[in-house]
Amino acid sequence: MHLFYQPALTPADAAGLLTDEDSRHATRTLRLGVGDTISVTDGRGNRFDCVITRADKQCAFRVVAILSTPPRLFSVRICVAPTKNLDRMEWFVEKAVELGIERISFFIGQHSERRVLKLERIEKIAVAAMKQSLQSWMPRLDEAVPLAQLIPSVSENQRFIAHLPENVPAEPLIRSAEPSGRYAVLIGPEGDFSASELQQATQAGFTMVTLGSNRLRTETAALSACQALNFLNQ
Amino acid sequence: MHLFYQPALTPADAAGLLTDEDSRHATRTLRLGVGDTISVTDGRGNRFDCVITRADKQCAFRVVAILSTPPRLFSVRICVAPTKNLDRMEWFVEKAVELGIERISFFIGQHSERRVLKLERIEKIAVAAMKQSLQSWMPRLDEAVPLAQLIPSVSENQRFIAHLPENVPAEPLIRSAEPSGRYAVLIGPEGDFSASELQQATQAGFTMVTLGSNRLRTETAALSACQALNFLNQ
Repeated sequence: MHLFYQPALTPADAAGLLTDEDSRHATRTLRLGVGDTISVTDGRGNRFDCVITRADKQCAFRVVAILSTPPRLFSVRICVAPTKNLDRMEWFVEKAVELGIERISFFIGQHSERRVLKLERIEKIAVAAMKQSLQSWMPRLDEAVPLAQLIPSVSENQRFIAHLPENVPAEPLIRSAEPSGRYAVLIGPEGDFSASELQQATQAGFTMVTLGSNRLRTETAALSACQALNFLNQ
Repeated sequence: MHLFYQPALTPADAAGLLTDEDSRHATRTLRLGVGDTISVTDGRGNRFDCVITRADKQCAFRVVAILSTPPRLFSVRICVAPTKNLDRMEWFVEKAVELGIERISFFIGQHSERRVLKLERIEKIAVAAMKQSLQSWMPRLDEAVPLAQLIPSVSENQRFIAHLPENVPAEPLIRSAEPSGRYAVLIGPEGDFSASELQQATQAGFTMVTLGSNRLRTETAALSACQALNFLNQ
C-alpha cells in the first residue's frame, strides 16, 4: 500500500491533488499511473482509498472509500528536553510515532545543553513514521518552550515526572499510572531537572516515577515512558 | 564515575592493567593520573573500585573495593533477524543493553534481506551502552545462524514468536508471559517469517504473540519485546 499524507483532505472531498513532492514520488519513484490505487491519510484518523485520475507533475485522485480509525482510548503526551545530539531526538520521534503517541512537547530545562530545536525536520520524521506504520493519526508536535512555561499549561489528568529522588523510593510509571488515562510525562535533559523545576512540577501535580533501575539516556527514557503507558493499556 | 570493561578481571585480583586503548582513553581523554579513582567491571556482575597506580601507555590499578550486583530475577533473550540497514540493529543493541538484556541472538530467516552480520561492531556498541548505563552485566551476543538451526537450541522456558496470525487473535506478549521467567522471543526480518518457519517455531513450543496493533519495524518490535518483559517484572 502506498500511503500519502495530506492534512487538508476532508471526508467531504470526493477528489484531490497530491503535492508536487508526493506527485514526483508517485510517478517517478513508485512509477504509478492513471488507474493505480493509493491511500491518503489526513492524519486525523481517516484513510482514503483513492484511484489516480491524472499522473502528472501534479497527480489527481478520486476517493473510492474512507476508512476511519477512532482515537485510542487513552492518550500519551511526552514532554521531553531535546538531546544535545539531534539524531537521538529524531530517533525517539520515529519510534514513538511508530508505537502510537498523541503528542510530543519539547521543552528547555535549566540544565539543557540544547536550547533550540527546529520542528521542521522532526515533523518530516513523524510523517514518515506514521506512513511506515500505516497509521492515520498524526501526533501533535509542540515547539520547544521553557519548562517553567510548559508545566502550568499541561492539562492531562495523569501527570508524571521521571525522576529518581534520592533516598525516596519512587514507584514505576507502569504501576503509578491508571489505565484509560490522558497521560503527560516529563523527561529531563542530560543534566537532569533542577531542584526548582522538580518543585514546580510536584506543586503542579506531577508525580515522581521511575522507569526502571538503570540509568537511561534521555531518548531511551522518553521511549520507555511511551511503552509503559502503551503496555498498561494493552 | 569512569567505568572500564575488563572481562578478564576476577574478584581474586588485587590489581590489574588497563588495555592499551583504555589506558590512552584514561590518560589522554580523561586526563587521569596516579591516585585517581576509576571503576572497572568484568561484565559478570562485579564492579571494582580502583585507584590508578601507574598512568602510562599501560595504566595499572589497585582494587580498593568490589561491588557485586546479582543477576536479574528474570532473563530476556531476544532472537532477531538483522535489518538491512545496520544502523537500526546497532540502535536496538544500544537500547536493549541500556534497558537490561541478558542475551541477543541473531538469526537469518528465509525472508532475510541481510544474510551476514559481523559481531565486532555490535560488541563495541554493547560495551559502550553497558558503561553508559553504569551496569556490571555484559549481555551474551550470539553470531547469526539460520533460524532453523537456532530454534531447536533455545532452552528458555517461556518461548514466544512475534507474529500476528491472520484472522486469529494473538495475545499481547505482556499478557501471555508470566513473571520471573526465562524468556526467549523471536523477532522476524523485514520480510517476516515464512510459513514453514512459523510452523517449526510453534512445534518447538513458541507461542505466537503480538506487540501491539501497529506495524512495527524489526528493531522497534525487538525493543518493544524487551520493554514488555521488563515492565512485566517491575
